[in-house]
Amino acid sequence: MKEKKNSWMWFHDYFSKTEIHLHGFTDIYASIKTKYQSIDIVEFPCFGKTLIIDGDVQSSIKDEYIYHEALVHPAMLLSNNVKNVFLAGGGEGSTLREILKYKALENVVKCDIDEEAINIYKEKLVEWHKGSFFDSRVTLKHTDARSLLESYPDSSFDVIITDLTEPTEGSPSKRLYSKEFFSLCKNKLKANGTLAIQASLFRITTYEMHASIAKTIKEIFPITRSFAPYVPSFDTTWGFIFASNQADPINFSPEEIDKRINEKIEGDLRYYDGITHLHLFSLGKDLRELLDKEGQIITDDAPFHLERKDQI
Amino acid sequence: MKEKKNSWMWFHDYFSKTEIHLHGFTDIYASIKTKYQSIDIVEFPCFGKTLIIDGDVQSSIKDEYIYHEALVHPAMLLSNNVKNVFLAGGGEGSTLREILKYKALENVVKCDIDEEAINIYKEKLVEWHKGSFFDSRVTLKHTDARSLLESYPDSSFDVIITDLTEPTEGSPSKRLYSKEFFSLCKNKLKANGTLAIQASLFRITTYEMHASIAKTIKEIFPITRSFAPYVPSFDTTWGFIFASNQADPINFSPEEIDKRINEKIEGDLRYYDGITHLHLFSLGKDLRELLDKEGQIITDDAPFHLERKDQI
Amino acid sequence: MKEKKNSWMWFHDYFSKTEIHLHGFTDIYASIKTKYQSIDIVEFPCFGKTLIIDGDVQSSIKDEYIYHEALVHPAMLLSNNVKNVFLAGGGEGSTLREILKYKALENVVKCDIDEEAINIYKEKLVEWHKGSFFDSRVTLKHTDARSLLESYPDSSFDVIITDLTEPTEGSPSKRLYSKEFFSLCKNKLKANGTLAIQASLFRITTYEMHASIAKTIKEIFPITRSFAPYVPSFDTTWGFIFASNQADPINFSPEEIDKRINEKIEGDLRYYDGITHLHLFSLGKDLRELLDKEGQIITDDAPFHLERKDQI
Amino acid sequence: MKEKKNSWMWFHDYFSKTEIHLHGFTDIYASIKTKYQSIDIVEFPCFGKTLIIDGDVQSSIKDEYIYHEALVHPAMLLSNNVKNVFLAGGGEGSTLREILKYKALENVVKCDIDEEAINIYKEKLVEWHKGSFFDSRVTLKHTDARSLLESYPDSSFDVIITDLTEPTEGSPSKRLYSKEFFSLCKNKLKANGTLAIQASLFRITTYEMHASIAKTIKEIFPITRSFAPYVPSFDTTWGFIFASNQADPINFSPEEIDKRINEKIEGDLRYYDGITHLHLFSLGKDLRELLDKEGQIITDDAPFHLERKDQI
Repeated sequence: MKEKKNSWMWFHDYFSKTEIHLHGFTDIYASIKTKYQSIDIVEFPCFGKTLIIDGDVQSSIKDEYIYHEALVHPAMLLSNNVKNVFLAGGGEGSTLREILKYKALENVVKCDIDEEAINIYKEKLVEWHKGSFFDSRVTLKHTDARSLLESYPDSSFDVIITDLTEPTEGSPSKRLYSKEFFSLCKNKLKANGTLAIQASLFRITTYEMHASIAKTIKEIFPITRSFAPYVPSFDTTWGFIFASNQADPINFSPEEIDKRINEKIEGDLRYYDGITHLHLFSLGKDLRELLDKEGQIITDDAPFHLERKDQI
Repeated sequence: MKEKKNSWMWFHDYFSKTEIHLHGFTDIYASIKTKYQSIDIVEFPCFGKTLIIDGDVQSSIKDEYIYHEALVHPAMLLSNNVKNVFLAGGGEGSTLREILKYKALENVVKCDIDEEAINIYKEKLVEWHKGSFFDSRVTLKHTDARSLLESYPDSSFDVIITDLTEPTEGSPSKRLYSKEFFSLCKNKLKANGTLAIQASLFRITTYEMHASIAKTIKEIFPITRSFAPYVPSFDTTWGFIFASNQADPINFSPEEIDKRINEKIEGDLRYYDGITHLHLFSLGKDLRELLDKEGQIITDDAPFHLERKDQI
Repeated sequence: MKEKKNSWMWFHDYFSKTEIHLHGFTDIYASIKTKYQSIDIVEFPCFGKTLIIDGDVQSSIKDEYIYHEALVHPAMLLSNNVKNVFLAGGGEGSTLREILKYKALENVVKCDIDEEAINIYKEKLVEWHKGSFFDSRVTLKHTDARSLLESYPDSSFDVIITDLTEPTEGSPSKRLYSKEFFSLCKNKLKANGTLAIQASLFRITTYEMHASIAKTIKEIFPITRSFAPYVPSFDTTWGFIFASNQADPINFSPEEIDKRINEKIEGDLRYYDGITHLHLFSLGKDLRELLDKEGQIITDDAPFHLERKDQI
Repeated sequence: MKEKKNSWMWFHDYFSKTEIHLHGFTDIYASIKTKYQSIDIVEFPCFGKTLIIDGDVQSSIKDEYIYHEALVHPAMLLSNNVKNVFLAGGGEGSTLREILKYKALENVVKCDIDEEAINIYKEKLVEWHKGSFFDSRVTLKHTDARSLLESYPDSSFDVIITDLTEPTEGSPSKRLYSKEFFSLCKNKLKANGTLAIQASLFRITTYEMHASIAKTIKEIFPITRSFAPYVPSFDTTWGFIFASNQADPINFSPEEIDKRINEKIEGDLRYYDGITHLHLFSLGKDLRELLDKEGQIITDDAPFHLERKDQI
């Protein structure tokens, strides 16, 4: 006779060879391998329904609003009256949901290479996308995002957002984090356009990939800002980068942000407002110093590569 | 950027509050909650396809033959020409598969309360049952095994086998391990009939439930023998009990066992033969001493109960 | 032959019944049970030398500066010219180290009930305290902090800092988080004095204890502010509370903070400066809303108590 | 506030990349790196005080008698009147303790290369060795066992026992499992001498190293027998090999074994007796078939090497 147990199925989230976070789950909603990735949707007692891609927590029902509001709203609010948006990735549909809150929006092109995954999300992640995939302003594409973006005339978009998996060895995202790609983004943006990207784990003990993406994007855009909200289901602060030619987030007061939210957005925000904006765009001194001195420039020919030093 | 990982979904097998065995799995074939139990069928790199019930490993494709041959063949070979068998439990169909190897067999009644589970096994565990559920000699019943057994005339069966989950609090198996139930078995067996039961984890550090079942069954049958093959996917030796009125396993030579196997069985055995019989029915001195002094008698009114002493 | 392994000794950090963070360690510097607590000092490849008390990570050599600078400097800079400080707890000596950076400081009373622990830290955590225990401005006491604080005349201190373990059942810290204790603190502070306390894990999925401490302290002080830096070795944002009669952190500009740091502090800060101050005192909207509606008032007779809802 | 916990320090026992057994421990008695190996002595609630070398469980106070009685007594009882024994390894002193139970014994040479380890065991593992290191019949040597054995005249010993760590890459044990070493053993044994060796994990899912050692030793000795008692703290059956020129374990009846135990041994045995002998030397059919067809011959120039097939 063994010990009575609570939960016997666990997800192991590997941070390094000697740091593993275990989450027991109680239900499996989907467990599928598409052509591009492994997708698991499970129920965690603490975080609720949660999407896991290739063994990385993507978003949980309990805190996905933090990630998606932080990714979308600074770029959407700091560009001028946003009508056209290009979204690379953003599978679950939450990034799309946030974009669609803007009253002036006319068209958003969402490009995700993995159609099979999107079909699963449409069915299984209704709480995430809330029908966004079916909004008439949305153009869904299932192809390589870089090639698609190249096909548009210059100055086509007010905002570009990339919400992709990380550019690790063999990932289809690898060509979407290079200097060449960011240069392409700049060309396709209007003069006062803005770019927002998800940019990897960012904390003082794990910063190498983020610092490299930040350094690379600085080569292309005059204004770039890293920010890093804490996402509980990730157990860490997560890095994003805002880039533009004109608008700088640190010049916007909480009052100005709150005013723009009231004017432009239909529906509620749970995480982002003027004070949160202040929080996001004032990084700790240690992280600012890291960004000043760390990072390698990523190009198509010289992709990001790292030997972790804390591994034994 | 996190550590590259091998497998991120893990089964946690709880032996005690401070002993947990983790098994990474790579595929999920089924994950279902029936009216009676939780059923998971997953793929372990080491043990292959594996059935887990309520968080306990039931059997793996790689070593289920050990468990099922050990449970079935001593009882089948030591009874006389076996024509009628009653099987309680044995969900996966492997116990049935072994019983059906006997050329003289005319009828086996298999009673498992959980029809929904059996339907899953029929579809998902073909490598286990190999079609046994559909053999014309088999009568399938989905009801309480004790009530069903009571409905037969005395001396109906040559062999009774119970292959049930453990009689823990709230388990439907609770009334199938009591002195009253074993007495019922004796009545329904022919004079030279035999009984074989799965009888819980049995090793010198975890023996309480097995010792109690053994002590209880000794109250009813003149001859009882505990045996405990090592089952790799369980990480432990597992206890079974043989009981009869006449035949005693330790009086059968390896040569006699091999002779009976040749005469009575059609098809191959992978684990059990004359020498294995010798191995099984010669327990270590420490386990024999434990059986002499430990255990409580289980009755319908006084079910098995244990406060584990190694828990902190 | 088994799998070759990297690290076989692991610390399990329990966040809930279904959330466990595992950290492999490679060296054990101390593992001792004092009269009050269990103390382990180990080496993590990722976070370096780390202090664990009663199974909770207290501080790692790699990021303890975040916790200790955030706890100490807002209170020290926002009080007037600080001469006298009372510190309850703060075992490792890092809080003391930060306090001692103030040029005007004349006396700091550090009270920690566990003298045996302090003696271990003096020897094993030199990188933390950097000799602070032996500074001539320090008065070390090993007694109950509440009784000691009661023994001082009213208005004795410019700053009071509590850096204690959490007020869980049976903890000696239990009487140091109640309304009565905070009232005592107010009496012993000068009119423009400030109070800073470590105030438990604080994130949207785990906030109950922090919200209760915050609600309790609001009963006593007119100005209170929660703040929550992310501490990597904790895998979470950690809650602190600032309280005072006069000074409010949100009225201090980054420039004013940087000016005060330059004037008052000798030595460098790694985490805290004007922009970090802005970051700390601008919480996300979701956390602000939680603080508005959650929490129970803690008194000596009604200590904090919680049934966790995410437990299975 | 986190989950209340039972034990936060855990040993991870790696069986393969996807099979890890976790044991919480409550005390650390020693944690030392010698010139040759890492030694941890900890307290497990289930198995009590336990010795771990290089991350492998060596023996627990609760079940070490199984391993050591199985290793020593078949060889000691089946050789003729044993006066001289050579023991390679056997650090903890338990193997020595069992050897010293023989009344006729005159001298045992125990050779263990790691003197620092032996000194720790002398002090910390008294319950294991029970003073054996200090028995006047014992000659302790701290040098390479193979060179030492070579230095003796041929036919010097009645029994040779090797109780060594496994011959993995870089291990000092590597030259003590080769065909050349076993040939050396044969030369140093008397005509009716016996050899017993610890011979790695042995179960149907992990057998490669054992099968290779068995195949190698068969090249040298006319009679060899694998046996594999289940050791609970190892969670597996563990392989040993008996070898001799004359005596074959399967020809000894339980009665003959019990008679020899009575005549030759002073003190009690807990695991081994005549029936246990029968159990040990009657392997399951599946393991016998594995030994017939698996394994490579290990020589000094061609050491054991394995690519595990179940790794992902």
